[in-house]
Amino acid sequence: MDAHFGMIGLGTMGRNLVLNIADHGFKVCGYDRSEEQTLRMKEEAGDRPVITVSSSADLIKNLRTPRIIMFLVPAGKIVDAVIDELIPNLEKGDILIDGGNSHFIDTDRRYAALQNSGIHFIGMGVSGGEEGARFGPSMMPGGNEESYKLVQDIFESIAAKADGEPCVAFMGNSAAGHYVKMVHNGIEYAVMQMISEVYGLLRNEGVSNAELHQLFDTWNKGELQSFLIEITADIFKQKDPETGNDLIDMILDKAKQKGTGLWTSQSALELNVPLPTIDTSVSMRYLSALKEERTQFARLYNHQNKKTGVDVEALKKDCRDALHFGFMMAYAQGLELLSVASSIYKYDIPIPTAIKVWRAGCIIRSLMLNDLYKAFSEDATLKNVIASPVFVPLLKEKRPGLVNFLKTAMDAGIPSLAFSAVLNYFDAYVQERLPANLVQAQRDYFGAHTYERIDKEGAFHTDWTPAT
Amino acid sequence: MDAHFGMIGLGTMGRNLVLNIADHGFKVCGYDRSEEQTLRMKEEAGDRPVITVSSSADLIKNLRTPRIIMFLVPAGKIVDAVIDELIPNLEKGDILIDGGNSHFIDTDRRYAALQNSGIHFIGMGVSGGEEGARFGPSMMPGGNEESYKLVQDIFESIAAKADGEPCVAFMGNSAAGHYVKMVHNGIEYAVMQMISEVYGLLRNEGVSNAELHQLFDTWNKGELQSFLIEITADIFKQKDPETGNDLIDMILDKAKQKGTGLWTSQSALELNVPLPTIDTSVSMRYLSALKEERTQFARLYNHQNKKTGVDVEALKKDCRDALHFGFMMAYAQGLELLSVASSIYKYDIPIPTAIKVWRAGCIIRSLMLNDLYKAFSEDATLKNVIASPVFVPLLKEKRPGLVNFLKTAMDAGIPSLAFSAVLNYFDAYVQERLPANLVQAQRDYFGAHTYERIDKEGAFHTDWTPAT
Repeated sequence: MDAHFGMIGLGTMGRNLVLNIADHGFKVCGYDRSEEQTLRMKEEAGDRPVITVSSSADLIKNLRTPRIIMFLVPAGKIVDAVIDELIPNLEKGDILIDGGNSHFIDTDRRYAALQNSGIHFIGMGVSGGEEGARFGPSMMPGGNEESYKLVQDIFESIAAKADGEPCVAFMGNSAAGHYVKMVHNGIEYAVMQMISEVYGLLRNEGVSNAELHQLFDTWNKGELQSFLIEITADIFKQKDPETGNDLIDMILDKAKQKGTGLWTSQSALELNVPLPTIDTSVSMRYLSALKEERTQFARLYNHQNKKTGVDVEALKKDCRDALHFGFMMAYAQGLELLSVASSIYKYDIPIPTAIKVWRAGCIIRSLMLNDLYKAFSEDATLKNVIASPVFVPLLKEKRPGLVNFLKTAMDAGIPSLAFSAVLNYFDAYVQERLPANLVQAQRDYFGAHTYERIDKEGAFHTDWTPAT
Repeated sequence: MDAHFGMIGLGTMGRNLVLNIADHGFKVCGYDRSEEQTLRMKEEAGDRPVITVSSSADLIKNLRTPRIIMFLVPAGKIVDAVIDELIPNLEKGDILIDGGNSHFIDTDRRYAALQNSGIHFIGMGVSGGEEGARFGPSMMPGGNEESYKLVQDIFESIAAKADGEPCVAFMGNSAAGHYVKMVHNGIEYAVMQMISEVYGLLRNEGVSNAELHQLFDTWNKGELQSFLIEITADIFKQKDPETGNDLIDMILDKAKQKGTGLWTSQSALELNVPLPTIDTSVSMRYLSALKEERTQFARLYNHQNKKTGVDVEALKKDCRDALHFGFMMAYAQGLELLSVASSIYKYDIPIPTAIKVWRAGCIIRSLMLNDLYKAFSEDATLKNVIASPVFVPLLKEKRPGLVNFLKTAMDAGIPSLAFSAVLNYFDAYVQERLPANLVQAQRDYFGAHTYERIDKEGAFHTDWTPAT
């Protein structure tokens, strides 16, 4: 009856978090509908202060008050079912924490529903995969700050640490935590897609997996240092025990997804925020899934792509610059979305704090986040990192490499949609005068939608005359 | 008491449709809450068989049964209010037609709500702007075919005609009509964006508005012949009476939008359909709206874009090929979305018929639709026009021009996001082997999401070992 922490859902993530919490001196009570998962929890817990129970009612009985109950269950209706089952047995002051990848709209709804119940509700994004959950994840809780303060100690002790600081902090009101995590995942999609585009082109030019390992390993020691570059280096060295081949060559080129990337794009569309690098990364996952069609279409266009024969060492440098430029733009787009969402949804997200929380434990952790933090700390009103003095010289310096990369890819017929989106996003954002006056003229021509003028305020309509 | 047709909403579109219907020998009764609109309707109607009334109850009294009542009111709650107001006074067999740009999810909901009421409900997309409404729009009705047959005569008589065939036909179940119209608008966004990107680059290279008029006028006489190319030619000739300048130069480069483009992208994301050219066209509208930021950022990156000095005549040819290639891919993406939505939502959309309905009256009408119709008539199971024998040689032929265009744009620093999306979409779709195996390896590495293999079926997980 004196456990500090209750966990519902003892899948890989749940079990690992329980072990992590127990290792930090807290007593944990776990519950999962599946006996198998419950048994695995018992085994893995060993002599740690972990007990398991066979119902949520028992879980509640075993917790000291105010009760802290976190659930790590699949997003959607199951989350509602868990909450509905718990509520009748809870008391005022108890704290519920949804640690799954819930859609922010669901979290907003659940938060509102519980707001006057006396039960605290925290929607919290958790990043870092299995390894992070076990030894230090990055966590993004939202709801209201008073609720968070009640659980802050536990989460700070189990979180990943960056420069000694725990990678968990209050992310803002209502669903802010899940929103920040969703955008984190959108950035993750973009970074992964760009790395794969570099791989696609270098592979096409004959660079071996062993060389790719070396290259990514080297990059990981420099300005590109990041978790995703690091694991990519590892991946190129992994052997397939069955065939003895490099494992990467045995993996089918169909990338799956679980929704957070597409949610990010859908939300950006709703909020009128340009997010092309993340959008196109989602599209590329969809295109990768159409393997059957691609195989059929490739036959119709034989010899579409070919080794260009460019100087591979020069290309590697272009790849490095393209990645650097691209990473900056992926973060730029994600952070701009965060700031717009924060304002429209009144989440009040502390952007510099979000950046700090991403510095360790999570999938998009990287050296570059230090620069991003610097940019936002120096100018809290920063609209986009493109305008930051920290990034202006870097972006100027790296753009030519990105252009070279894209030209080579086009010559080779190797798609590089995310990188194209990066360049064009940047080129459009630094363009005082876009050709959108023509779009507005067309809209007024066929739909009388009116246009603005460069020389005075107002909305104007022209009765456009056919020229001939 | 004997009007054939009732119209609620006498804005520009409503009035013009009423005049069109009256000109075809039908008696029309119109109603609008606004006295001003009602008066304008009376004036414009002259001695045509048009009466106006001052309440929806009076409208109902003036119609012969079964009553045909169309509304052209702003999408959203107003549509629900209009329906709620009408229902108590209707009889079984009466027919309601929502002719506005309603979101397909709303139309699905309204259709389901009325399905067992005995009242017919038709969600119908109407394209063609003011001019189309007045003299022949393209119309996309959906719901159930029995309902449509009750109004077919009227709509066929007022529709635009292509090769003698009316540009209206049953588009499928429930919200199919609004879905087809939404995708039509998505394609429209893409085509408009590509035309503006061509304009942006040619303007940068010093091509004058007079030359642009000539160029678009010439293009409109060839394979690019289409409404949007035609009006673009007109636009470049329009003078601003106030300043005497070319009007295009006086229009602010901020493009607005009313939602159908972003809905198309949101729906494609939901259905896992790659739609990058439409997505990026929406993004570019958003970027255009950020004029203040662009002006500020441009100063930080001075001399970002510059005249490249390429041979302008060669560039014009590249532009033509890029537009041709791009238009094909815009239709390809839209039509693939239609076919996936048709299957998932059980709309049962007749794709070749949708293409035929777009041939006249609507904004995306073009000569190319004949080829598209041919492609889908020859192969009803066509997954994407990329695979059509009609398009394979064309796409092969035009790709180099698109590549040249993009390289010049990159050198100039002129964004061409939609065209980049076109090329990369194509290059990915004709690529048997994408680098997505790396994305899947990364997902398995950090999240144990498993991967498929090239040599056997199943889902596999590896315990990835850090290389060092």
